[in-house]
Amino acid sequence: MKVIILINCPDQAGIINSVTQFIHLRSGNIIYLDQHVDKSSDIFFMRLETEFQTDEFSAENFKTLFKNELAQLYQMHWSIHLDTHRPKMALFVSKYNHCLYDLLGRHNSGELKVDIPFILSNHPDLKFIADQFNIPFYHIPFSKENREAAEEKQLTLLKEHKVDFVVLARYMQIVSERLISIYPNRIINIHHSFLPAFAGAKPYHAAFKRGVKIIGATSHYITSELDAGPIIEQDVTTVSHSHSISDFISKGRDLEKIVLSRAIKLHVLRKTMVYNNKTVIFS
Amino acid sequence: MKVIILINCPDQAGIINSVTQFIHLRSGNIIYLDQHVDKSSDIFFMRLETEFQTDEFSAENFKTLFKNELAQLYQMHWSIHLDTHRPKMALFVSKYNHCLYDLLGRHNSGELKVDIPFILSNHPDLKFIADQFNIPFYHIPFSKENREAAEEKQLTLLKEHKVDFVVLARYMQIVSERLISIYPNRIINIHHSFLPAFAGAKPYHAAFKRGVKIIGATSHYITSELDAGPIIEQDVTTVSHSHSISDFISKGRDLEKIVLSRAIKLHVLRKTMVYNNKTVIFS
Amino acid sequence: MKVIILINCPDQAGIINSVTQFIHLRSGNIIYLDQHVDKSSDIFFMRLETEFQTDEFSAENFKTLFKNELAQLYQMHWSIHLDTHRPKMALFVSKYNHCLYDLLGRHNSGELKVDIPFILSNHPDLKFIADQFNIPFYHIPFSKENREAAEEKQLTLLKEHKVDFVVLARYMQIVSERLISIYPNRIINIHHSFLPAFAGAKPYHAAFKRGVKIIGATSHYITSELDAGPIIEQDVTTVSHSHSISDFISKGRDLEKIVLSRAIKLHVLRKTMVYNNKTVIFS
Amino acid sequence: MKVIILINCPDQAGIINSVTQFIHLRSGNIIYLDQHVDKSSDIFFMRLETEFQTDEFSAENFKTLFKNELAQLYQMHWSIHLDTHRPKMALFVSKYNHCLYDLLGRHNSGELKVDIPFILSNHPDLKFIADQFNIPFYHIPFSKENREAAEEKQLTLLKEHKVDFVVLARYMQIVSERLISIYPNRIINIHHSFLPAFAGAKPYHAAFKRGVKIIGATSHYITSELDAGPIIEQDVTTVSHSHSISDFISKGRDLEKIVLSRAIKLHVLRKTMVYNNKTVIFS
Repeated sequence: MKVIILINCPDQAGIINSVTQFIHLRSGNIIYLDQHVDKSSDIFFMRLETEFQTDEFSAENFKTLFKNELAQLYQMHWSIHLDTHRPKMALFVSKYNHCLYDLLGRHNSGELKVDIPFILSNHPDLKFIADQFNIPFYHIPFSKENREAAEEKQLTLLKEHKVDFVVLARYMQIVSERLISIYPNRIINIHHSFLPAFAGAKPYHAAFKRGVKIIGATSHYITSELDAGPIIEQDVTTVSHSHSISDFISKGRDLEKIVLSRAIKLHVLRKTMVYNNKTVIFS
Repeated sequence: MKVIILINCPDQAGIINSVTQFIHLRSGNIIYLDQHVDKSSDIFFMRLETEFQTDEFSAENFKTLFKNELAQLYQMHWSIHLDTHRPKMALFVSKYNHCLYDLLGRHNSGELKVDIPFILSNHPDLKFIADQFNIPFYHIPFSKENREAAEEKQLTLLKEHKVDFVVLARYMQIVSERLISIYPNRIINIHHSFLPAFAGAKPYHAAFKRGVKIIGATSHYITSELDAGPIIEQDVTTVSHSHSISDFISKGRDLEKIVLSRAIKLHVLRKTMVYNNKTVIFS
Repeated sequence: MKVIILINCPDQAGIINSVTQFIHLRSGNIIYLDQHVDKSSDIFFMRLETEFQTDEFSAENFKTLFKNELAQLYQMHWSIHLDTHRPKMALFVSKYNHCLYDLLGRHNSGELKVDIPFILSNHPDLKFIADQFNIPFYHIPFSKENREAAEEKQLTLLKEHKVDFVVLARYMQIVSERLISIYPNRIINIHHSFLPAFAGAKPYHAAFKRGVKIIGATSHYITSELDAGPIIEQDVTTVSHSHSISDFISKGRDLEKIVLSRAIKLHVLRKTMVYNNKTVIFS
Repeated sequence: MKVIILINCPDQAGIINSVTQFIHLRSGNIIYLDQHVDKSSDIFFMRLETEFQTDEFSAENFKTLFKNELAQLYQMHWSIHLDTHRPKMALFVSKYNHCLYDLLGRHNSGELKVDIPFILSNHPDLKFIADQFNIPFYHIPFSKENREAAEEKQLTLLKEHKVDFVVLARYMQIVSERLISIYPNRIINIHHSFLPAFAGAKPYHAAFKRGVKIIGATSHYITSELDAGPIIEQDVTTVSHSHSISDFISKGRDLEKIVLSRAIKLHVLRKTMVYNNKTVIFS
């Protein structure tokens, strides 16, 4: 059985040794260890991939021991993840279909190792794609009047399907504080600019107006502040005076697809850790 | 004799034909023609490289005819540039030496086809490099009290040496409005961020704090608004959580050197045109 | 009516002027002109986007005049293309589905302005995707025995559907000389390496073995020499010692999709011209 | 005192635990640990940055214990490096000056933490730059007749100055087998192509002829097979049909400078390990 352990805590001498010894004493083998110290805030981060004998391993037991022998001592934030769990990912979309097509193609070819219990949209337009790929589609429109009821429906769906994390694949609707608080660092958005440049609406138009020579896309965890959450992944492509706004949008689509899919893969592999509104991305 | 012609004017049918015919009738040969229409503002841009028989060509005569037969008709902004003129480039620096070393190395190896009449600094620290490369160095310190006198000295030097354009190679001092008005679109700055992200002071620190995954550098013409002038060239490089601020600074140095030198080369080859606070960069 | 004109011929003075005047005299307006001279072989290239009054324009007439007045004089290779023709693109695939999904997604969202009359494969595996997107699928298996009959079937299909160009979207079967001769510079392949490095089979394995730090993908026109045709587009991504061969393959998939789709778009916009086994890519 | 430990050995369970415990028991603190397993060849790699109390630490003692308690048990290839040693780097050049200027600029600004005891060349042309930067310059010409004597002189110089590693900064002369055997994985070359494409002479000319859309540069350790040693670092830049060979050369110069300087920094920080003619580059 493969077990991934994520840790962060105040930095001090001896942590690596303590953790590796703890695993060794439980007959675990460390397959991969990646560690980082943020010297500006003296925080220690570590991600371990370990292997245990399946028949002997008890997750509950391991957690109790880990907490008592290590976590309390070092004031750790920590989590463990078993590879027997296949994450459930909900997709939220609006009218743009490029990210949706891209993610469903990747899912079908086995590249995205998740289950997709449903696609949710505030518009009915993309239902036909959900049908093409045989995935349930829920149309939950939003208006000033129905906001609370609509949010309630979203939460009910997420709960019913035991969704682990949410991907906003160009979902053009503000996500409620309540949803964010229930899924902290588990709602992944794709913003179509190189953040923090051009946060907010119509970033391609703003980039065109400013005359930049490079445009970008940014995938980040949603927080209550718009387009200001911890950045998971970014990428860019060159543009020139010869490109119109619609060229920007077209070039940007490829960026959005790639950046979003990379961010999702990092999240699924438990390679992300958040602190101080930033991410550590383990290798 | 090689003559470069730069034009912009309101777009309409027939401009290309009129200009190419004008050149043809004066026995000129078009070596290269690059043209662009900004459809959002209906402006036409063109850059021509032409060849004329040296003994028959009179620049004054050509200018008069061009003005009377074409420029007035099409309401052109235009300029012509003869390859017999080698541009004079003044370098302004402060304490950082990486861009200075880079530019002087390129100059010595013949890559930068300009004369460098002098290096000017508000600090004495880099005089030794000017000496290494046998270029006059002027130390003009700035303080609240001497500001006007210092600016006057700058202008006198620029005038005396018939400087064509100024390069701010990490010059950490605000350039006066007066200097900008005398050298419109002829003062090239390098800013150590991917503008418009992180304008102003300490962009690497701000980028580190925001947790971006890519940093950049931007070369632009100086305008009266700080870090907001027309962008000539940008480039980026990836960073990660594992990089400290000093890593950002170190990686950024390479970006700054390359982006600034590319912008200078584009300017020297007359491949830049400015409008609406943006640049057209001809190929 | 929009008309694109592509020209190449031995370089000499006066070509641009002659062509622009020819168009002007037929009441055409030049919207875009891009031109290039290969100085190592003294060949002149030009691409013009022009506009003519639809009711007055006769393509046949234009072609005859162009041939008689210009093409013969300058020994031009040339072609004209009317925007009233929507190109027909056949897709050849084998077992990998990522490029197929990507192209069909782009087609559905209107990004690829072509008709796709059919998908052809030497394996039945991807029929379900053709079904998902409602496109006819032809399974034409290849073996030593049936080679000639299979090639005949391919040609018949291409002829029947008046296919303009063929895209090999990871088609793992050698294309016949006869097909290449019927579609010169009109069969676009995606090779999963940064050519000319790692031509031939299993390029990701070869790249892994060599320990390169960057991998690439190359889209090119098929010629009779394997992986040696004129390159249309290339792109790369970084890899490290920490990536396995399957990581290379996974990262490469994204490159392949983007590079192939870019090449197709350039071809459809008539922005490619081939000479000396190289391409000119107009802007 | 900071001590860097580099290890590789056949992979097996327990290595990380054994090494971290060994350091812990000697009162060392692990500041950074990066580890990798090459699964295709079952080799384990690790780099540790550790801190020991300076007054208690004996390198000789540590080495003996490490060898007896760990290295023999796990069949390790290993080395330890104290930060009290500042490496001595010899520069070999010929006629191109861009890499030389770049490295000396970086050295002067404190970016390259090495001593440069001398610059050696088979041509006298760049002596003036060595003089500019006050570094001894040795001109050792090569001809068929004097080859052995010249190589002898090289070796004598390297030995006299206790040189740790050699950088070939566009040194256009084959390095002798004997020199390579004395400095295994300690001679760093910059090749002006994206290896393995265009190995050998005149790579920019070959790239131009092939019509590639991207060119590159590669820094690698010299082995007896030309341009086939373990790759340390690569980078690329885009080119187009509009670039001449001299444009390739000019764009390539910037790549060469950056790629070579990055490789040198990785080497100096002991972040490189070589096996199977490939490198592991620690983060």
